Amino acid sequence: MITRNLTALTDYYQLTMMQGYHSSGIADRLAVFDLFYRRNPSENGYAIAAGLAQAIEYITGLEFTDRDINFLKRQGVFSDGFLEYLRGFKFTGDIHAVPEGTVVFPHEPILRVKAPVIQAQFLETALLNIINHQSLIATKAARIAEAAAGDLVIEMGLRRAQGPDSSVYGARAAIIGGCSATSNVLAAEMFDVPVRGTQAHSWVMSFEDELTAFREYAKTFPDNCVLVVDTYDTLRSGVPNAIKIFGELREQNPGFKNYGIRLDSGDFAYLSKKARKMLDEAGFPDALIGGSSDLNELLIRDLKLQGSAIKLWGVGTNLITSGDWPAFGGVYKLAAAEDDSGMLQPKIKLSDNVEKITNPGIKKIHRFYDAATGKIKADLIALEHEKFDPANDQLLFDPNATWKRMTLPAFSYRVRELLTPVFVDGHCVYTPPPVMDIQAYCASEKATLWDEHRRLINPHVLPVDLSEELWELKERMIQELR
Amino acid sequence: MITRNLTALTDYYQLTMMQGYHSSGIADRLAVFDLFYRRNPSENGYAIAAGLAQAIEYITGLEFTDRDINFLKRQGVFSDGFLEYLRGFKFTGDIHAVPEGTVVFPHEPILRVKAPVIQAQFLETALLNIINHQSLIATKAARIAEAAAGDLVIEMGLRRAQGPDSSVYGARAAIIGGCSATSNVLAAEMFDVPVRGTQAHSWVMSFEDELTAFREYAKTFPDNCVLVVDTYDTLRSGVPNAIKIFGELREQNPGFKNYGIRLDSGDFAYLSKKARKMLDEAGFPDALIGGSSDLNELLIRDLKLQGSAIKLWGVGTNLITSGDWPAFGGVYKLAAAEDDSGMLQPKIKLSDNVEKITNPGIKKIHRFYDAATGKIKADLIALEHEKFDPANDQLLFDPNATWKRMTLPAFSYRVRELLTPVFVDGHCVYTPPPVMDIQAYCASEKATLWDEHRRLINPHVLPVDLSEELWELKERMIQELR
Repeated sequence: MITRNLTALTDYYQLTMMQGYHSSGIADRLAVFDLFYRRNPSENGYAIAAGLAQAIEYITGLEFTDRDINFLKRQGVFSDGFLEYLRGFKFTGDIHAVPEGTVVFPHEPILRVKAPVIQAQFLETALLNIINHQSLIATKAARIAEAAAGDLVIEMGLRRAQGPDSSVYGARAAIIGGCSATSNVLAAEMFDVPVRGTQAHSWVMSFEDELTAFREYAKTFPDNCVLVVDTYDTLRSGVPNAIKIFGELREQNPGFKNYGIRLDSGDFAYLSKKARKMLDEAGFPDALIGGSSDLNELLIRDLKLQGSAIKLWGVGTNLITSGDWPAFGGVYKLAAAEDDSGMLQPKIKLSDNVEKITNPGIKKIHRFYDAATGKIKADLIALEHEKFDPANDQLLFDPNATWKRMTLPAFSYRVRELLTPVFVDGHCVYTPPPVMDIQAYCASEKATLWDEHRRLINPHVLPVDLSEELWELKERMIQELR
Repeated sequence: MITRNLTALTDYYQLTMMQGYHSSGIADRLAVFDLFYRRNPSENGYAIAAGLAQAIEYITGLEFTDRDINFLKRQGVFSDGFLEYLRGFKFTGDIHAVPEGTVVFPHEPILRVKAPVIQAQFLETALLNIINHQSLIATKAARIAEAAAGDLVIEMGLRRAQGPDSSVYGARAAIIGGCSATSNVLAAEMFDVPVRGTQAHSWVMSFEDELTAFREYAKTFPDNCVLVVDTYDTLRSGVPNAIKIFGELREQNPGFKNYGIRLDSGDFAYLSKKARKMLDEAGFPDALIGGSSDLNELLIRDLKLQGSAIKLWGVGTNLITSGDWPAFGGVYKLAAAEDDSGMLQPKIKLSDNVEKITNPGIKKIHRFYDAATGKIKADLIALEHEKFDPANDQLLFDPNATWKRMTLPAFSYRVRELLTPVFVDGHCVYTPPPVMDIQAYCASEKATLWDEHRRLINPHVLPVDLSEELWELKERMIQELR
C-alpha cells in the first residue's frame, strides 16, 4: 500500500556530520545512543511506547537512491568519496528496544543503538520522528480510554491530523493505546484493525427531510444503523425520527441489532440522558448512544460523572493531534563512544538543568514488580552487566535525592528486563506482533499500574531509579567535567 | 520518491454513505461542497491557504486497488454492485480553490467542489486532512517570520513532527509561510527548497575535546562552518574555541565566509549579546549567531525586543506541530444539491451557534483593495453570478450586525476574485507553481495586510462580509427552517 523510500527523512546536519566522521577517519568507531524522553505527555503518570514496527521498516528499507545522491551532490559540499559511501550505506549494528505497548517512564532508554558512529548518528532523526509520534498518540489514547472507563472509544481524527501519515500511524497508535476502532479506512486496511462509521449531516441534508434520509440509510444498512440526530433538532426531530426508523426495522426483522444514535452537538450530559429516556420508553433499551464533538479525556470524565448515557465516544482532533501536548519530547543522546584504544567509554552531557544531564554508559531497564499484586514498585536503570536477583534484598534510592530510599525484601518482588534485541549485527531479529495483540499487551501493561499512577491529573510519580553502580559512575563523571 | 496509493485515506462513513447514495439512486445528483474554516489558528489575524498541490495529486491518483476492494468486501456490508462501482471510480467534477500562499479569512470557501454527490462526498476527508495540515503550518510559519522581522528562520522540526508526512509537508508549508530553509533533506529534495544544518552536540562529544571537534568539522567544511557552542560551557569554552577555529580558517583563506555559531541552551538574550561582543572584538563581525531551543513566535519577538544578537532562528517543535494550536479547523459543508427536478438548490446547516450556520448557495470570494495603498479593505462572499464593478459605489455590511456598514466610493477600490478553476469536468486545469514561487506570492499577499492585521496578539479583524443577495438568501432560508 505505502511503498516509498524514506531514507532521506533526516536532518541535513546528520549528513554533514557523517561526512565529517567519514573524512576524519573515525566513522567506524562504535557509539551507543539512547532514545529516551524527559516528561510524560499531558502530564500523564506514564507513557506508552509505540512506533517500533515502523522504525524497523525504516531501517531495513534504507537505501540512498540516485535521486538522493544527486540532490546531495548539488549542495556542493559533499565529497565524491562520501557520496560513494552513502550509495552502499547499510545498518550493521545492534538495536534493543522495549516492545510496543509497554508502559514507560521518563529517562529510561526505550531504544538503544550500538553501531559505528556514522550509522548510529544517521538513525537519530527518523527514529525520533517515528517513535515520538506514535508514543505520543498511544499515550493520549490511553488517557482517553482511562476516562471512558470501559466504554468504546473510536479514533476519528483523520480530517484534522497533521497529514496522511499522522492519521494512519496515529490511528495505529490510538488502537495500541486502547481505542476500539478507527474511522480511517487506510489505517484499518494496513494494520488489520476494526473500522467504524455511519453517516454525516450532509447525508441527512441530501434528502427532502430527515425521516426520508434515515429511512434510506436504514434500507441500505438494516444492521449497523446508527443515525446522526442533530442535523435539525436533536430531541424534537432527530431522536423521534430515529425511533420511527427503529420501529420499522424491528417490524421487518425482530432480531435487528447494532443500532443507535450519534449526538454531534449540544450538551451531551443533558441530551444523552433525555435521548436515553426517549429510546427506553419507545422500547429500544439496547439502542447505543454515541457522542462526538471536540471531546477529550477530561470532558469525557466529567460527562460520565454527570450521568451521561453515551457509551461510544468518537474522539477526533484532541486524540489524533494530542491537542494539549502535541509533541513527545523524545531525544537521542550519546551514551558511550569508542576511544583511540578501541574501548567503549561512557559519555555524559552536562547541563545547568539537573534533569537534562544524561545517564552515561550502556544501560538496561529493570522493572521491579510486587510479587503479591503484580503491580510495578519501581524501575531501575542499570549498567548492562548488572544482574538483580529476587532472592536478595534490593536497595532503591532516588538518584536526585539519595536520602529517599527503600529496601525491597528478598522474594517480595520479581524483576523483568524491558529491552529486547531488535537488530543484531544489522539483521532484524524481532517480528512485531499484530496491532491487536499489541493492544492486548498494552492493556496488560496498564494493569500493572496502581490507580494512583493512572489518575488523569497530578498522578503519583513512579520511581525510576539508578543502580548504585550507575549512580556512582554518573557522579564521578560530573565531578571530572566540572 | 513517495509513490503510494492514498485512495483509502478516508473515513469509513464516506463509504457507507456512498453505498447509500448508490443504492438509493441519487448518486449522480450534483452537489456543491465548500471547504472553509471558522477560526484563525493561534488567534492570528489571517491564515495562509496551503496544500492544494497535494490535494490535486490525491484526486488525480484516485484508484481503488484490489486490496482496497477486498478489505471493504470483508466488512460484510457493501454490495457487489457498489464495489464494482468503486473499481471504476473517478472524479468527474469541478473544483475551484484559492491559490496556495493566499491570505484567507474565516468562513470563506477556500475550495469548492461541484460534482455528483457520491464523488463530492468522498473527497471530503482527504481534502480536509491535506489542506488543514498545510494551512495550519503555513500560518504558523507566517507568524514566526513576522516575529523574526527579516531574520532568517529555519524549519527544523522533523524529529518532533507527527510522523514522516507531517515533517515533509509541514516543511513545504513552512517555506510557503516564510521560512528560509528546512533541515529536512527529504522535503528539500521533493520540493526543491533550500536545506540547512551543521552539527550536533554528539559530534562535539565524539572527539577528545571541543576544540578538536570544531577543528575536524572546519577541516571538512571550511565554508559553511557553523559551530554549536553549548556542549560544555557557551561563553567560557564554546565561543572562545569557535573564535580560535575562525582564526585558523581565516589564516588558510582570508575570504572565508558563511560561518558562525549556534546557541542551543541558556538565555538567548544574554548569551547572544555576550557572544556578539566576543566575536566582534576578535575581528569576526560577520560571524552569524543562530539560536534554537523550543522557540516560538512570542519568544522570538521578546528576545529581539531585548536586543538579542541572534540573526538566524531555528524553530522546531512549535512550528512543525503548531504547538499552541495543533489543528486547523477546516470543515467541508454542503452548500447546494440537485433536487428531483434537476435544479441545484441552496442548502444551509443550522446551529444554535450563529457562527456555525453555513452560507448557502454556490459562492465566490471577492477581495476589495484600497486603490491608493493596495491594502485589503474587506472580503465579500457573494453568489456565483454576482459582479462587482469599481466604477460603482460599493456597500459593505457586517452580516451579523447589519448596522455596521460602510460604502466604498467608486474608483477608490479595486476587486479581485480569489477562487481559481482547478478541475473542470474531472480534468486538472491548474499547474501548481514551484514552492519558492508560492513563497514569493505569499510574501506579496502578506504585504496587502495592514500591520494591525499582522499583529501577533489580538490583531484587528478584517471584515468578511456577505453580498446583499447572499445575506437575503441566508436570512430567508433560516426563517423557513425555523
